[in-house]
Amino acid sequence: MTFSYKYERPALAVDCVVFGLDDDDLKVLLIRRDIEPFQGRWALPGGFVRMDETVDEAAKRELVEETGVGRVFLEQLYTFSALDRDPRERVVSVAYFALVNLSDHRVKAATDAREAAWFATSDLPALAFDHEIIVDKALERLRGKVRYQPVGFELLPPKFTLRMLQRLYEKVLEKALDKRNFRKKVLAMGLLEELDEVEQDVAHRAARLYRFDKKRYRELEKQGFDFEL
Amino acid sequence: MTFSYKYERPALAVDCVVFGLDDDDLKVLLIRRDIEPFQGRWALPGGFVRMDETVDEAAKRELVEETGVGRVFLEQLYTFSALDRDPRERVVSVAYFALVNLSDHRVKAATDAREAAWFATSDLPALAFDHEIIVDKALERLRGKVRYQPVGFELLPPKFTLRMLQRLYEKVLEKALDKRNFRKKVLAMGLLEELDEVEQDVAHRAARLYRFDKKRYRELEKQGFDFEL
Repeated sequence: MTFSYKYERPALAVDCVVFGLDDDDLKVLLIRRDIEPFQGRWALPGGFVRMDETVDEAAKRELVEETGVGRVFLEQLYTFSALDRDPRERVVSVAYFALVNLSDHRVKAATDAREAAWFATSDLPALAFDHEIIVDKALERLRGKVRYQPVGFELLPPKFTLRMLQRLYEKVLEKALDKRNFRKKVLAMGLLEELDEVEQDVAHRAARLYRFDKKRYRELEKQGFDFEL
Repeated sequence: MTFSYKYERPALAVDCVVFGLDDDDLKVLLIRRDIEPFQGRWALPGGFVRMDETVDEAAKRELVEETGVGRVFLEQLYTFSALDRDPRERVVSVAYFALVNLSDHRVKAATDAREAAWFATSDLPALAFDHEIIVDKALERLRGKVRYQPVGFELLPPKFTLRMLQRLYEKVLEKALDKRNFRKKVLAMGLLEELDEVEQDVAHRAARLYRFDKKRYRELEKQGFDFEL
């Protein structure tokens, strides 16, 4: 069975840039390609859009298939359409970026199941297609977004220390931040709920745990409050 | 002649949200459709992507065809892919938004040539397809962008008064701004070049003209300066 059209059409795909943060680095999830083109190369998880799904749904489906986690932060990034981005034929790709919490065990399990791995954004291998350009665009978006929207928390476990939060900003923005200034700014926003708990199993002095107060943020947002860090 | 594929494919189109600012309002350029579907309804300028052009090139081409102006601010907005957005068949549309200076006579001339018109964003007619959703998304992006990037100047003539600049921000952000505060903030950034000219042909006292110093902005940007208004 084939499908015929009066005019030539590009194929339509989605690609997902999945970011995670571990103790060392900001990381991106890559899958090793087992077919041509670019067989053996690392690539972003993705695939063709089906006729019965929107591009959002296609990205969500690919993400569940590749990471095993359905409820993650997922946002459309940009549509890439260079004529020669796929050597087989013309493929236009709608790229998404996702933020996952690497301490969530479901993420780990799914990515162990096939040849997938997390790579530090500062030390990526050569990627298939135009995926290096897509990752760069995603990093640029993430850097812009963490400052003006509380999306960074998606990369952290639900309970985190201020040190973990600062490290997140330092890794994403690629610069050292002054500890006192950072804490003052963060706490002044009134969006962190201080918990009656401290972190467990750490070599250094156990620090206080905090939680991001999403409900409070929604309220403040309605009143015209601008998040800024 | 037809083109056959193993899997069904959506058609790929671009749609452009072209913003302009006149003395009264922030406006959007619309074209009246002369064919079905939605015959007689107003719609965004746009069309199908050709196989020998990227989506950026398709948007530029449509924009030149519809506005007569090639060198305008044009940026990819978002890709819309609801299954039923076009009643004929599945069409995925990559939307763009453009900012034009309405005092540029070339813009006027081209839009007079066919049934096209500028509508106030606050008073749009019923639009074809999902174009109302696309316009809303473009307005949201424009509101976010004018505050953190100097894109608003694209809507003004090269030489403008501070009053014109404030009105631009008030129209885009849909709120009144304090004149003294606004001027202080704008001038403190050091991005406006004060000219030895005043505005012409005005009923009120002629005000000083300014120019946006793009070169200075590029320099400051490299030093990590953040535009904010």
